[in-house]
Amino acid sequence: MKEPIDVAVLGATGTVGQKFVRLLEGHPMFRLSELVASERSAGRVYADVVAWKQETSLPAEAAGVVVQPLHAELSSSILFSGLDSSVAGEAEQRYADLGHTVISNASNHRMGDQVPLVIPEINPDHFDLVHHQPSPGAIITNSNCSSMFLAMALAPIHRTFGVEKVQVTTMQAISGAGYPGVASLDILGNVIPFIRNEEEKLEEEVAKILGTLSGDRVFPASFAVSAQCNRVPVYDGHTETVSVELTRNAALEEVREALSGFRGLPQERGLPSAPTAPLILVDEPDRPQPARDVWRSNGMATLIGRLRPCPVLDYKMVILGHNTVRGAAGAAILNAEAFVSLGYLPRQ
Amino acid sequence: MKEPIDVAVLGATGTVGQKFVRLLEGHPMFRLSELVASERSAGRVYADVVAWKQETSLPAEAAGVVVQPLHAELSSSILFSGLDSSVAGEAEQRYADLGHTVISNASNHRMGDQVPLVIPEINPDHFDLVHHQPSPGAIITNSNCSSMFLAMALAPIHRTFGVEKVQVTTMQAISGAGYPGVASLDILGNVIPFIRNEEEKLEEEVAKILGTLSGDRVFPASFAVSAQCNRVPVYDGHTETVSVELTRNAALEEVREALSGFRGLPQERGLPSAPTAPLILVDEPDRPQPARDVWRSNGMATLIGRLRPCPVLDYKMVILGHNTVRGAAGAAILNAEAFVSLGYLPRQ
Amino acid sequence: MKEPIDVAVLGATGTVGQKFVRLLEGHPMFRLSELVASERSAGRVYADVVAWKQETSLPAEAAGVVVQPLHAELSSSILFSGLDSSVAGEAEQRYADLGHTVISNASNHRMGDQVPLVIPEINPDHFDLVHHQPSPGAIITNSNCSSMFLAMALAPIHRTFGVEKVQVTTMQAISGAGYPGVASLDILGNVIPFIRNEEEKLEEEVAKILGTLSGDRVFPASFAVSAQCNRVPVYDGHTETVSVELTRNAALEEVREALSGFRGLPQERGLPSAPTAPLILVDEPDRPQPARDVWRSNGMATLIGRLRPCPVLDYKMVILGHNTVRGAAGAAILNAEAFVSLGYLPRQ
Amino acid sequence: MKEPIDVAVLGATGTVGQKFVRLLEGHPMFRLSELVASERSAGRVYADVVAWKQETSLPAEAAGVVVQPLHAELSSSILFSGLDSSVAGEAEQRYADLGHTVISNASNHRMGDQVPLVIPEINPDHFDLVHHQPSPGAIITNSNCSSMFLAMALAPIHRTFGVEKVQVTTMQAISGAGYPGVASLDILGNVIPFIRNEEEKLEEEVAKILGTLSGDRVFPASFAVSAQCNRVPVYDGHTETVSVELTRNAALEEVREALSGFRGLPQERGLPSAPTAPLILVDEPDRPQPARDVWRSNGMATLIGRLRPCPVLDYKMVILGHNTVRGAAGAAILNAEAFVSLGYLPRQ
Repeated sequence: MKEPIDVAVLGATGTVGQKFVRLLEGHPMFRLSELVASERSAGRVYADVVAWKQETSLPAEAAGVVVQPLHAELSSSILFSGLDSSVAGEAEQRYADLGHTVISNASNHRMGDQVPLVIPEINPDHFDLVHHQPSPGAIITNSNCSSMFLAMALAPIHRTFGVEKVQVTTMQAISGAGYPGVASLDILGNVIPFIRNEEEKLEEEVAKILGTLSGDRVFPASFAVSAQCNRVPVYDGHTETVSVELTRNAALEEVREALSGFRGLPQERGLPSAPTAPLILVDEPDRPQPARDVWRSNGMATLIGRLRPCPVLDYKMVILGHNTVRGAAGAAILNAEAFVSLGYLPRQ
Repeated sequence: MKEPIDVAVLGATGTVGQKFVRLLEGHPMFRLSELVASERSAGRVYADVVAWKQETSLPAEAAGVVVQPLHAELSSSILFSGLDSSVAGEAEQRYADLGHTVISNASNHRMGDQVPLVIPEINPDHFDLVHHQPSPGAIITNSNCSSMFLAMALAPIHRTFGVEKVQVTTMQAISGAGYPGVASLDILGNVIPFIRNEEEKLEEEVAKILGTLSGDRVFPASFAVSAQCNRVPVYDGHTETVSVELTRNAALEEVREALSGFRGLPQERGLPSAPTAPLILVDEPDRPQPARDVWRSNGMATLIGRLRPCPVLDYKMVILGHNTVRGAAGAAILNAEAFVSLGYLPRQ
Repeated sequence: MKEPIDVAVLGATGTVGQKFVRLLEGHPMFRLSELVASERSAGRVYADVVAWKQETSLPAEAAGVVVQPLHAELSSSILFSGLDSSVAGEAEQRYADLGHTVISNASNHRMGDQVPLVIPEINPDHFDLVHHQPSPGAIITNSNCSSMFLAMALAPIHRTFGVEKVQVTTMQAISGAGYPGVASLDILGNVIPFIRNEEEKLEEEVAKILGTLSGDRVFPASFAVSAQCNRVPVYDGHTETVSVELTRNAALEEVREALSGFRGLPQERGLPSAPTAPLILVDEPDRPQPARDVWRSNGMATLIGRLRPCPVLDYKMVILGHNTVRGAAGAAILNAEAFVSLGYLPRQ
Repeated sequence: MKEPIDVAVLGATGTVGQKFVRLLEGHPMFRLSELVASERSAGRVYADVVAWKQETSLPAEAAGVVVQPLHAELSSSILFSGLDSSVAGEAEQRYADLGHTVISNASNHRMGDQVPLVIPEINPDHFDLVHHQPSPGAIITNSNCSSMFLAMALAPIHRTFGVEKVQVTTMQAISGAGYPGVASLDILGNVIPFIRNEEEKLEEEVAKILGTLSGDRVFPASFAVSAQCNRVPVYDGHTETVSVELTRNAALEEVREALSGFRGLPQERGLPSAPTAPLILVDEPDRPQPARDVWRSNGMATLIGRLRPCPVLDYKMVILGHNTVRGAAGAAILNAEAFVSLGYLPRQ
């Protein structure tokens, strides 16, 4: 067994940062050794500065770590970034310039020409973009939470039949907005039919993930995506209704098989955070449901239900995923596992 | 001022029945004179048998009415039916055969060839179908709640530009399922991506409402509708995301004007339950919201927000309406007002 | 009819401030003429700076008012203060020193020796304290929301039988915490068994309200109150379970009569915001409930249910009131009405 | 290692029955071998008749079991009863008469003179009552869910200092009402200040559990309990505010120590379902909270927070427990483990 790689978490006290800390507990490839947060928290031990909001206890290995400020010099080779987008852009670049591999959940660099936006089941070849980054280190990104589940459901369909058009309506959990995030006065017994920038992210990120790498850039997939995003009073789990038009005709059963048979690099290599199957088809007519199904495969699978013909496009379905696990921190960790497994990590 | 018309409520103790009783309080055209419920409640005064769930007090004029059983002989000329679909089909037909005008919110007869499925702002001419009904009385229906708001938003678009395709995802309130309806264990902090028969109703009812009357039948509008229906933890108010493809090109501003300028018979005649405008366009980017906007125009308007281009079809928007007012009891009462106003009611 | 008195609202964009604006719309005694908010909002019209969160539309008379900063010179004789306690203390005092009558909902001055803490049904005589205030103007306060309903329920019992001990557990609505207030991640499907300083306020304010005025101070009532305060996922309406020990024996029926027969100055004088009866006894075994009963008497009544013997103290009951109406802005407005009606307002 | 004991679950498709099935999966002492449900489900395999509502998957060992009707002859020596109280009384007695040991969560027999009402940490000696039962088998009961947590918190206090008076207000989760249980229209954004028979159960069960066994009966503890029970929109976890008057003076620190040091038979013997400590004291000022803390110690611990002096009685605190685990099925299973461990089970 290899020696674990030292990793740091940037933005360690935030919602995504906490999820990183939780998911890295006992990780077989990574050893959590540094925690970075705002100036206000720096110099104190993590247990004293974090307002821990996870369902599990604060990991002992993190509790006593002295938090460092955002500009601190770090020794970890991999930095997981749960930084807020207000500071992530500059900070992540700076750490990459210093030679670190930054695995980021922030949106700032996702659409950068030489920045891989990767879901390891779909486009691990895009990691190659790091060779074109000017830094000695690298910046790797995962997608926005709602893009993740849509890209995952579309990938085997696009690969097998081609995708022409996609309509998606999301019903997103409050945990996606961080903490304090959505005010209870705004969401209790309510639906908010708007999430800033979310529809734009969905429409452009999915096309990049399903796009084609050629030299130093990615040509986005050419299908059109139309997104309508809503916040609903659900704790964890984004539900999405999806309709898709295919390039070539396919029977319902063929589509089912493409979805249920989908596997990728994480499954082939048995990466530690990989779900057994990236897509789980559920047969009950009223599932998947966030409150009941979101933790399937430790929150790392995307669930698909109600696959059926669409009178307007070709097929429609309901998809569900855990927005703060597979849709955020878990996605970044799986990216890191894949990146390391493929031998990209610069030896130091 | 005309003498008010005596009316009865069938299924008076149920959720829709209670809403009828509430909305008929002090109505200028109708006088609530009879209440019909199950055998179990018959013979006792309404106040003693109803589990009143409305936000307003039980109207005094209803409290003391002795409830009659479903097969009772009634003297009212108009019967508002909030009967459950398990009994509505046969009972409504029987009362129509006895000469009553049954204004029904039940789904049983909606798609009947000679049964008007009417939204008075859209297709009051369909009332003419009653002349082809074999009964001495008549059966008039209003649409399903989620169909109501979609038909209302599509009507001026279809009339002005033509509609080719419609995609709709609904987020429906728990009050739409009646009482006891949805178990709290199923919906608290959850989304249920399925409502039995709801998608089918949406897809076929809208086409009939926007269809063309010719002689003794209605030719449905020929556009395709694809619906995905969800239950969300909201008390009152169905929110729907809608994308629509037009027959002829139209600028965004033209579509706005078609929607905001929409008026119909209820507005022209100033019917008692008519909203000032059937459609209200809201400009805030994060509205309409059920918890905040559902009672606009006494729950009789349909709200439209976020009208914008759709990358897949032509335009998309968010619509909202009060499912148990404009989407149920209020719709039936407005139907009755229109029906009477147009002189259809047989003199007795 | 008298000329209406010009009034201002301090903290006009906040939750309580908005409720003041809403409740003052069309008020027969007061004319809303000035609005004061933070420096950031000053100089712009109210409609442009307020994030209006009320169920009713923004009143036209307020929409166009140009907002003034907190240190502005005001011409209104009565200032309703919905200021946050972080600034209320100093600002209210300064306006009183300038001759204004400040009717405050903030907690800062409530326990001040010469500051009346008044519920007009209970202790309007305490207004006399203003004669001992050093300012040319005056500061009048109403109680904390949960204190309001408890004091109201105890007042007739204390007056008739004497109160020795009180146990109260509150289940408080999220609107009581203002906006953004409680994070949805903290309260969705949860109970928070702690509200900072709330138990202390309940324990001391009730004693002052039910205390005895003697010269320039109030001797608090001597009974002991023990409070346990909780936040629950309810929008509006604080529910409280109360147990009380009496000084002298009383039959259940006597206690009922004392409660249901309770009337005070607002009822005797027919003040505009007065509920017909300050206390409403409900007989259904499972009421009062916040979602169903909070708007009884326009949110100005306190509801009492489940009055029954207590095996530990003497009687127990459930009480409910609207925390942002009778428990905040409505209480202040009724205080102003009573104050004016009693002739206290300095002629200017 | 001993051979596991065959057990059956009565009422296996209900909420409590499902929890039994879930908690018995892989149990070291018990082997789930029979499932009993209503006539309607009998003859079909469990997976086909159960509407599984648990967060974990249906255990494979239960899925294929053919369900038997309520009057079936059973071979298991221990029967766990999750039967509804409408049928539990007679059915449990009949099975006891046939020689089975019935470990029941139903309320029917709890207050029976010769029926042990046991919490193994508190009164395992009460099991001796089975020797006085006329049946060849036995009926053992656990308490109502809200009684469980109150009895657990009071036990070490009563043992060490004596308890004189108890005031308790509960805020109970919807899962306590079974399925479909509480209608969402009744509880979304609401509090229902009434749960039928719940206050009576709390007041009498706690006294029996903390009572003294003498020969063939239990003399209940003599302190007075006053309960006020509420339903709140929480999924799992009953929160209770408690005030207690002691027989002899005790410093706060003494009470803390009595609570935190509390251990009983399940801890001493290391029973499989025993929490490490029956009571967990939490120090954060705003905890315990049901949504965050209910699964501590696998849902088998009772959490205590905010211990502090009470101005009316002596001390007050907030307690929390998992109502369907420690408060129902888990309590019954721990009872069975203790009963077997103490050698009570008749050899067959």
